[in-house]
Amino acid sequence: MCNYCFGIDIGGTSVKMGFFNAEGTLLEHWEIPTRIEENGKYILPDIAEAVLTKMKEKSIVKENIIGVGIGTPGPVDESGVVHKAVNLGWGVINLKEELQKLVGVTVKAGNDANVAALGEMWQGGGQGFENVVLATIGTGLGGGIIINGKILTGSIGAAGEIGHIHMVDEEEEECGCGNHGCLEQYTSATGIVRLAKRKLASSDKASTLRSVTVDSKVVFDAVKAGDVLAIEVAEEFGEYLGKGLAAIAGVCNPEVFVIGGGVSKAGPILIDFIQKYYIKYVFHGSRDAKFKMATLGNKAGIYGAAKLVLN
Amino acid sequence: MCNYCFGIDIGGTSVKMGFFNAEGTLLEHWEIPTRIEENGKYILPDIAEAVLTKMKEKSIVKENIIGVGIGTPGPVDESGVVHKAVNLGWGVINLKEELQKLVGVTVKAGNDANVAALGEMWQGGGQGFENVVLATIGTGLGGGIIINGKILTGSIGAAGEIGHIHMVDEEEEECGCGNHGCLEQYTSATGIVRLAKRKLASSDKASTLRSVTVDSKVVFDAVKAGDVLAIEVAEEFGEYLGKGLAAIAGVCNPEVFVIGGGVSKAGPILIDFIQKYYIKYVFHGSRDAKFKMATLGNKAGIYGAAKLVLN
Repeated sequence: MCNYCFGIDIGGTSVKMGFFNAEGTLLEHWEIPTRIEENGKYILPDIAEAVLTKMKEKSIVKENIIGVGIGTPGPVDESGVVHKAVNLGWGVINLKEELQKLVGVTVKAGNDANVAALGEMWQGGGQGFENVVLATIGTGLGGGIIINGKILTGSIGAAGEIGHIHMVDEEEEECGCGNHGCLEQYTSATGIVRLAKRKLASSDKASTLRSVTVDSKVVFDAVKAGDVLAIEVAEEFGEYLGKGLAAIAGVCNPEVFVIGGGVSKAGPILIDFIQKYYIKYVFHGSRDAKFKMATLGNKAGIYGAAKLVLN
Repeated sequence: MCNYCFGIDIGGTSVKMGFFNAEGTLLEHWEIPTRIEENGKYILPDIAEAVLTKMKEKSIVKENIIGVGIGTPGPVDESGVVHKAVNLGWGVINLKEELQKLVGVTVKAGNDANVAALGEMWQGGGQGFENVVLATIGTGLGGGIIINGKILTGSIGAAGEIGHIHMVDEEEEECGCGNHGCLEQYTSATGIVRLAKRKLASSDKASTLRSVTVDSKVVFDAVKAGDVLAIEVAEEFGEYLGKGLAAIAGVCNPEVFVIGGGVSKAGPILIDFIQKYYIKYVFHGSRDAKFKMATLGNKAGIYGAAKLVLN
């Protein structure tokens, strides 16, 4: 009887662990530290120990486990090989096989942003849809694309890297990826701060933003309070992201865009700024795509990881 | 014994018909006129008659036919429903079911550009790869995206509409789709003429283009002859298309881009102009994607259509 599975999400400081039943209900969740020392050699043994300890605690054996799904930073190909996860200290490793050896049950692996998209499709903002693009607006802009209910992985696991779509030829600041003018330079938490600082410098409008340390929350709080300059910043943010999502729609024609990540705590007002520009720039065949807010927060990864093995 | 199949490609003036064996060898090909009068009501009966006549001529019966694959203009969803093919006079029609009724064998249908991409993957420039983007540079810029050997259809058949990715905010001329600044306005046969005319007007460089009627062939002939102004036009074309393909790679991370369409008769020199800008703008995870020329010419559609039923 296969009654349970694990959904695991490796982050740079902690590993989120989820214990699910076969119906996809999250029964328990907890975290363990991510030990990145010595090129991350302890990460998988730590995870395996946590899995096996939980099984013992619940008095369940391998035969009760459908599998272990796991999301990790870095590109992950369809065979479960990670092609460098710099934050974890990993080079190329066969995550699926290595973890399988340690836990003795089937493992499936995916990129963390892609896996989060699968989670949001399954039990989050994209529920009821099978063609979903998740835009995760955090420190950077992450993405995950779901086609017919499955992750779009790409040839070497680099599909859904929507934050690095080129947008601005004239950009002088370098993006973390080494290019200039990437979408995430304008549509992430740090990107919003960049837009706000530039607007503050180029405009002499009064603004509450002039008297505080600017972060993305401060900007959207000011937007909600009617601050004209902050609204201009939000319009710019929305135009960049709407244009970027329109390009993505030209490629994969999704049913729904789900907006997640830390910045999405600003709420559905984000969609107001994004969707109107999306409609302006998108090919008419994708004009009716819906926009929804993500609902799983930082549990999207463990849900999606569980779904990898429940598929 | 299922030994044969048909691959059919509906165009605005003629329907290309292909008769294949089960190994995918094209045994015969011919064309019939596309009768678009009376909202295209004769198109499918004409095709069915051509199929049934060929079967009779070859003394083969339905049981020998694996199926009929067909590509058509317009968005086609995964169930084989066409959502408006304006050039054919069609509204929403269930192409798969209607043709199935007429021919009495399994029919599979796809969008013509997507089906051509499948053909190029199978027996053309993308042979040996399973993650392929075809860019068809003709009157417009068409596209087709193949993921793991299958067409990326999108939620309503509008995936792969790469010609209408927004590129230029300042564009004043309208694209055929109603938007302004679409990729195909700079990277199709007509787009190249647009770029050339603008360059001729804004530059006073000598150029052989000044004394002829400019079309895309004339431009690339001048490029090959070393005409400096023509080379500037080709650079602009290459930068737009390289940037557009880089955005597409950010979404789907293909192994190979295949360059086809009438303009591709200019030869591999096209790739020289496109690829260097692709590398400049693309996310590093997709930097190694290959570039190949299409090889099936206007038979890509019948090959891809046959592959729909041989899958």
